[in-house]
Amino acid sequence: MKVVRVVGYHQDLQLDEAPEPEITSAMDVIVKIGAAGVCRTDLHILEGQWAEKSQVQLPYTIGHENAGWVHAVGDGVTHVAVGDKVIMHPLITCGLCPACRFGDDVHCENNEFPGIDTDGGYAEYLKTGARSVIKLDDSLEPVDVAALADAGLTAYHAVAKAARVLRPGNVVVMIGAGGLGHIGIQVMKAISGATLLVTDRNPAALALAEELGADHTVQSDEQGSHIARILELTGGKGAEAVIDFVAEGGSTAQGVQFLRRSGNYYVVGYGENLDIPTIDIISSEINFIGNLVGSYNDLAELMVLAAQGKVKLHTTVYKLDEFQQAIDDLSAGQVRGRAILVP
Amino acid sequence: MKVVRVVGYHQDLQLDEAPEPEITSAMDVIVKIGAAGVCRTDLHILEGQWAEKSQVQLPYTIGHENAGWVHAVGDGVTHVAVGDKVIMHPLITCGLCPACRFGDDVHCENNEFPGIDTDGGYAEYLKTGARSVIKLDDSLEPVDVAALADAGLTAYHAVAKAARVLRPGNVVVMIGAGGLGHIGIQVMKAISGATLLVTDRNPAALALAEELGADHTVQSDEQGSHIARILELTGGKGAEAVIDFVAEGGSTAQGVQFLRRSGNYYVVGYGENLDIPTIDIISSEINFIGNLVGSYNDLAELMVLAAQGKVKLHTTVYKLDEFQQAIDDLSAGQVRGRAILVP
Amino acid sequence: MKVVRVVGYHQDLQLDEAPEPEITSAMDVIVKIGAAGVCRTDLHILEGQWAEKSQVQLPYTIGHENAGWVHAVGDGVTHVAVGDKVIMHPLITCGLCPACRFGDDVHCENNEFPGIDTDGGYAEYLKTGARSVIKLDDSLEPVDVAALADAGLTAYHAVAKAARVLRPGNVVVMIGAGGLGHIGIQVMKAISGATLLVTDRNPAALALAEELGADHTVQSDEQGSHIARILELTGGKGAEAVIDFVAEGGSTAQGVQFLRRSGNYYVVGYGENLDIPTIDIISSEINFIGNLVGSYNDLAELMVLAAQGKVKLHTTVYKLDEFQQAIDDLSAGQVRGRAILVP
Amino acid sequence: MKVVRVVGYHQDLQLDEAPEPEITSAMDVIVKIGAAGVCRTDLHILEGQWAEKSQVQLPYTIGHENAGWVHAVGDGVTHVAVGDKVIMHPLITCGLCPACRFGDDVHCENNEFPGIDTDGGYAEYLKTGARSVIKLDDSLEPVDVAALADAGLTAYHAVAKAARVLRPGNVVVMIGAGGLGHIGIQVMKAISGATLLVTDRNPAALALAEELGADHTVQSDEQGSHIARILELTGGKGAEAVIDFVAEGGSTAQGVQFLRRSGNYYVVGYGENLDIPTIDIISSEINFIGNLVGSYNDLAELMVLAAQGKVKLHTTVYKLDEFQQAIDDLSAGQVRGRAILVP
Repeated sequence: MKVVRVVGYHQDLQLDEAPEPEITSAMDVIVKIGAAGVCRTDLHILEGQWAEKSQVQLPYTIGHENAGWVHAVGDGVTHVAVGDKVIMHPLITCGLCPACRFGDDVHCENNEFPGIDTDGGYAEYLKTGARSVIKLDDSLEPVDVAALADAGLTAYHAVAKAARVLRPGNVVVMIGAGGLGHIGIQVMKAISGATLLVTDRNPAALALAEELGADHTVQSDEQGSHIARILELTGGKGAEAVIDFVAEGGSTAQGVQFLRRSGNYYVVGYGENLDIPTIDIISSEINFIGNLVGSYNDLAELMVLAAQGKVKLHTTVYKLDEFQQAIDDLSAGQVRGRAILVP
Repeated sequence: MKVVRVVGYHQDLQLDEAPEPEITSAMDVIVKIGAAGVCRTDLHILEGQWAEKSQVQLPYTIGHENAGWVHAVGDGVTHVAVGDKVIMHPLITCGLCPACRFGDDVHCENNEFPGIDTDGGYAEYLKTGARSVIKLDDSLEPVDVAALADAGLTAYHAVAKAARVLRPGNVVVMIGAGGLGHIGIQVMKAISGATLLVTDRNPAALALAEELGADHTVQSDEQGSHIARILELTGGKGAEAVIDFVAEGGSTAQGVQFLRRSGNYYVVGYGENLDIPTIDIISSEINFIGNLVGSYNDLAELMVLAAQGKVKLHTTVYKLDEFQQAIDDLSAGQVRGRAILVP
Repeated sequence: MKVVRVVGYHQDLQLDEAPEPEITSAMDVIVKIGAAGVCRTDLHILEGQWAEKSQVQLPYTIGHENAGWVHAVGDGVTHVAVGDKVIMHPLITCGLCPACRFGDDVHCENNEFPGIDTDGGYAEYLKTGARSVIKLDDSLEPVDVAALADAGLTAYHAVAKAARVLRPGNVVVMIGAGGLGHIGIQVMKAISGATLLVTDRNPAALALAEELGADHTVQSDEQGSHIARILELTGGKGAEAVIDFVAEGGSTAQGVQFLRRSGNYYVVGYGENLDIPTIDIISSEINFIGNLVGSYNDLAELMVLAAQGKVKLHTTVYKLDEFQQAIDDLSAGQVRGRAILVP
Repeated sequence: MKVVRVVGYHQDLQLDEAPEPEITSAMDVIVKIGAAGVCRTDLHILEGQWAEKSQVQLPYTIGHENAGWVHAVGDGVTHVAVGDKVIMHPLITCGLCPACRFGDDVHCENNEFPGIDTDGGYAEYLKTGARSVIKLDDSLEPVDVAALADAGLTAYHAVAKAARVLRPGNVVVMIGAGGLGHIGIQVMKAISGATLLVTDRNPAALALAEELGADHTVQSDEQGSHIARILELTGGKGAEAVIDFVAEGGSTAQGVQFLRRSGNYYVVGYGENLDIPTIDIISSEINFIGNLVGSYNDLAELMVLAAQGKVKLHTTVYKLDEFQQAIDDLSAGQVRGRAILVP
C-alpha cells in the first residue's frame, strides 16, 4: 500500500510502498483510511522536536488524525464490523490499567500513539485497537470529521471540563480563535449557557468567532490593551474561566489579569512557562487546570455534536500523494481551515 | 393601600384597605408591587389545603410570585436602592443557619413565605428582606418576569440540577409541557447539549414544546402507549434523565419504565405516591431526586437567561381589582400562559 | 475437577466431576479457587428465585464470591501472571460499551456473572476475564477476602458514594449491622469524618457495631420506637444520610422519618416497595439513591483498605466438600461471620 | 479597655487604653476576647509588608485569630446570645454579594478583616458581625481553639478540598509539617482513607507528623534527595495530590516532580513563583489549585473535629500584657506550638 513516511528529521516526507498491516491479536482493528488530518504537530515532528520524546524508529508513517472504514477485525472485536465508518481516538489504550478503568484513557500507562510513536494514517490502511474506534453517524463522512480526532478532541475536552462548572451569567474568555478555538467556540455554545468572550490578535479570527456564536470579541495585542476592555466587560472583576488555546508569547501573564477571584484558568496551548507568584495564586484562590487530548468518551460526545450539526469544521482537501503541497501550504499559513489528505 | 386577602377558606378573596408595610429592621425591603403571578397554589390555599401547614392567621394577603420597584429599605441594605426594579425570591431567609450558609436558602430553618404564611403580593406594597431581592436587567419589566419567581424558579432548579450531569448524546425526557415544563424546555436548551424529548397528553402542549426547541415530542396517554415509543427513541435503553413535572395520575409508574439503568428521575410535580419495588431501584441502580423551588442564586441565573432572551413567559395581564376574574379564569383553565395581576 | 452444582431448583446442590475450564480467547483468565464465599443469594438461587432472571441452564456451578491464584492466562493478558494471588470482580465485562468506558463496569451491556448465569466458584478452577482480576497484596490470602468480592463490594460502593458528600458534623444512619453493614461500618470510619449511628433490631449486631467504631447505636423495633431517639440524636432534624442495608419489613417507611431535609437515602437492601408521597419528596427535597455491587475500581480500593487492616471480615471456613454443611448452617443462621468454602 | 496596637511599622507594638467597641448596627456582635493567636503574619504586619495591601490607618489593634464570649449583640442577632463561647471566622462578610450567597464567604466583595484592616483581637473586646461567630461545644475553651481560626482554617480548607477527590490507595504528600501542616495531618487522617506521606526538612517536625498519624515521612533537603524516595514510595508514578504548605525555597519545583499524571497540586504556602513550562502542565495534565483561608462552614466543620478530639493544637499561653515576649519568642523560633495571648 501507499504510505507517506518520515525518513529523516529536517527532510521531506517520502511516498513509499509498504505492506498492509495485518491482524495479529484479538482486539486489533484495521481501518481503510478515508481521511487524515494534517496538523501543525506534523511539522514539529519533521523538525525533530518529538524525536527524543517518542523514541520512534525511522522510517515510519506519520498522521494522527484519522477516520475511515473498518477493513478487518480481530476475533475479540464485537462492537464494529467490516465496512463500518469510524473515527479513531488518537491513542491505542490497554483498558486494564487504573487510568483506563476510570475512563481516563489518555493517561493509559501502556498507550501507543499512531502517527507519533508507531505507524499512522498518511496511508491506505492503519492498524489500531478495538478500544480506539467509534462508529460514525450515517450523516458524517471521514473527510468531514478526521481533524476532530485530535485538535477537535482537545478543544472539546477543555471546553466540556470548563462548562461543567459554569452557570448563566458567568463569563468564559477564550484566548485564540484558530484551529482549536473555532471548535471550542461551537462546543461552548452547544453545551453551556455561559457568556462567551473571544480574544485573538487576528481580526479575521474574531470575525469567524462572531459568526460561530461568540457573545463578545476583543482584539488582543502584545501590549495587553485588551485586558482593560475585558475587565470592563466583566464588571471589573474578570471572568470565571479563561481557556487559553495559545499559552505562548505572554498569553498566560496577560490572561491571569482578567481571571476572576476563585476562577479557573484552563491551559490548552503550550510554549511559554506559566510563571506566577504563589501569593497571587493563594490570595485570589485561582486554579490552573491542565488539558491534554480528550478521552474516548469525549470523542464519542463530540461526534454526537457533529452529527447534530452543532460543530462544523472548515477543511481543504488534498489527495494523499499531494501531501507535500498540504505540508507546504500549512507551513506557509495558506490552509483555510484544516488540511485533509484523502488516499 | 389596596390588598386582596384571604378572609376564609372556601370563600372568595376580598379587596380591602390595609396600612402600608413599614421598615422595622435594618434588613427590611419594601417593594412597590409591579406584578404578582396568579398560581394554582393560590386556588389550593382558598380550598384550605395549606391551612394546617402554613398556620397563617386570617385575614392575610395572598400572592407569592412578585416583582416591582424598591420603595424603602432598612439601614443595613446596601445592594439595592429605592427605585430599583426587582424580582423577589419567594422566601425570606435568615442568612445565618447552616443551610443559608451553604447557599441553600430554600432549606433555611427560619424562613417566612410571603403569600403563604405572611402577607404577600396581591397588594400595592410588600415587605420582604434584603436577602430576597434581585435587581432586574434594564431590559426586563416586573410584569414579564413575576411568574418566574416561583413556577419558573422551580423548573430552573430541577433542569439545572439535571443538566449538570448530562452530556451530548444523553436523552432527557420531560413529562409535562405546561406551566413549569415550558420554562424547563427553554432552560434545558439554553444550558445543555443533551437531546430533549417531551411527552404530554395534550397535543397543543407538544406543539408549543416543539416551537420552544424540544428535539422530539411524544404524546402520552393513560395506557402508556408512549412508553414503547420513548424506548425506541432511546435505543431500547431508556433516557439518562426523566424530569417529571406531573407526578400524578400514574406518571411516575410510567416514567420509570423509560428511565435507563443508573439514570436519574427528577420529581418536581406531586400528587401521587412514588411506589417502586426496592429490587428495581437497586438492580438498575436508579435514583429519585426531589426538587423544591430554587435558591436565590438559581433565580439570579434565571434572570440572566430572561435578560438574554433565552427564556420567555406567555402572560395574560389583569388589573389588581380584576383578581376575581383572574382566579375564575385560572380555575376554568381559560388563562393562556400565566395570569398576572398589576396594581 | 470437583465442582458443586445446581442440578434442580428446590433440590440440594450436588458434588460432581467436570472438565477444567480452558483458555479460549486472548483475554481469558483461569483462576485456581482459593476460597469461595457462601452467600444468602446462593440460598435464593436454590429456591428458584433467580431462574427466570438469569436464564441459566442447569446443571451449572454456583458461587459468586471468589478469590484464588492465577492458573492460566490468554495471549492478551499482561497485568497478571500465573501464580498471582487474585480476587475476582463478580462480573465479566466487555470493556467496550459506554458504561465500561466510563469505569461503570456494573452496567456493562454485555456482562456475564459467574455463579449466577455461568459457571461459578464452588469448584477447583474458574474461568473469568482479564478485566475481572485484581492482584492481592502479599498480606492478604484468598480465604480472608473472598467474601468481600460481592457482599463487601456492595457495602463499599454505597458507603463510598455517601461519604463523598458527607462532612464533619453530618450524621449518617446505617440500618442493619449484619453481613453488609459490618463492612459498611468499617469502611465509613476509614474514609470519612461523619458521625456514624447504627440501628438494628439485634443487640448483638449493635455490640459488634460499637466494637467496629460506630459513634452511636440505637436498637430498632417494628413499632419504630427508635425513630424518636434518632431524631433526638440529630437535634430533631434527622440525618444527612441514611444507608439502608435492609429495605424490607417497613425499614424504608421508618428510615425516611429520620432523614433530614435535602438528605440522601441510599437503598442497598431490597424486599419491600419504596412507597412515599411525592409531596414529601419534593417538600423536603430528599433523594433516593439506588446501589448495586461496586465497580472494579471500588473493589481495588476495598482491597487497599483490607491490606491496610482497616476492613476485616469474620469468617467460618469449610472444605469444599462440606458445602452442604455450610449451606445448612447459613440457612439456620448458625454461621458466625461469612461462610467460606476452600477446595 | 486594654489594646495592643501597631503604632508604626518597624516599631514595637504598644499597649494602650482605648474605648470599648459599641453596637452600632443590627448585626453587630461584640466579643470579650478569651484568646488571641499570635501569628507569623503579625510579624509581617510590623515589617510593613501589609501596609499597602490593607491600607489600614495607624494606630490600630492587631490580632486575627480570636475566640471568646459574646458580650453584646445587635437587634438582628438571633443565633448567639450574650455569654456564649464563640470562635470568630477571620472575615466580617456582607452575606449579600454573589460569593456570600454561594457560601464562599472568603471572596465576599465587601469584607473587613479584623486585625488586618480594622481593629483586631489583641484586646479585651472585639467587634465583629453576626455572620462571623460560631458557638463552641461545651468541651472546647477559647484558649484551645483560637489559633484554629486562621492557620487551622486554612489547613482544613485545603485538606478537605483535596480529600473530596482522594480514594483509598491514593497517596497525598504534604510538604511542611509545621503550624499549618500539623493541623493538616490530623484533618486528613480524620476525613480520608488516603495514604499520607509527609516531607519536611526538620526531623522533629517529621517525628511529630508520625505521632499524628502520617503513614510515611521523608526528610527533604535543598538538593531534592527526597524526590527519588517519594517516587519509590509511589510506585514510580508520583502522588495523586501534593499539598504544599511551604511554596518557597524551591518547594514547588521539587513538589511537581513527585506529582502524578493528572494529579492536583494544592498551593497553600507562598513566597516563591510557580514557574512551570506549560508543556509539562498539558502533557501530564496536572492542576494547580489555589487555597486561601476557609469559609464559615469550613470553620464550623473544623470545630466539630476539635470537639471530637480529632484535631488538637499545641499552644504556649501568654498574658495579654506579655505580648512583646510572645512576639519575641515567635520571632526567635522559641514557641512550642502556637503562641496565644489571654487578656
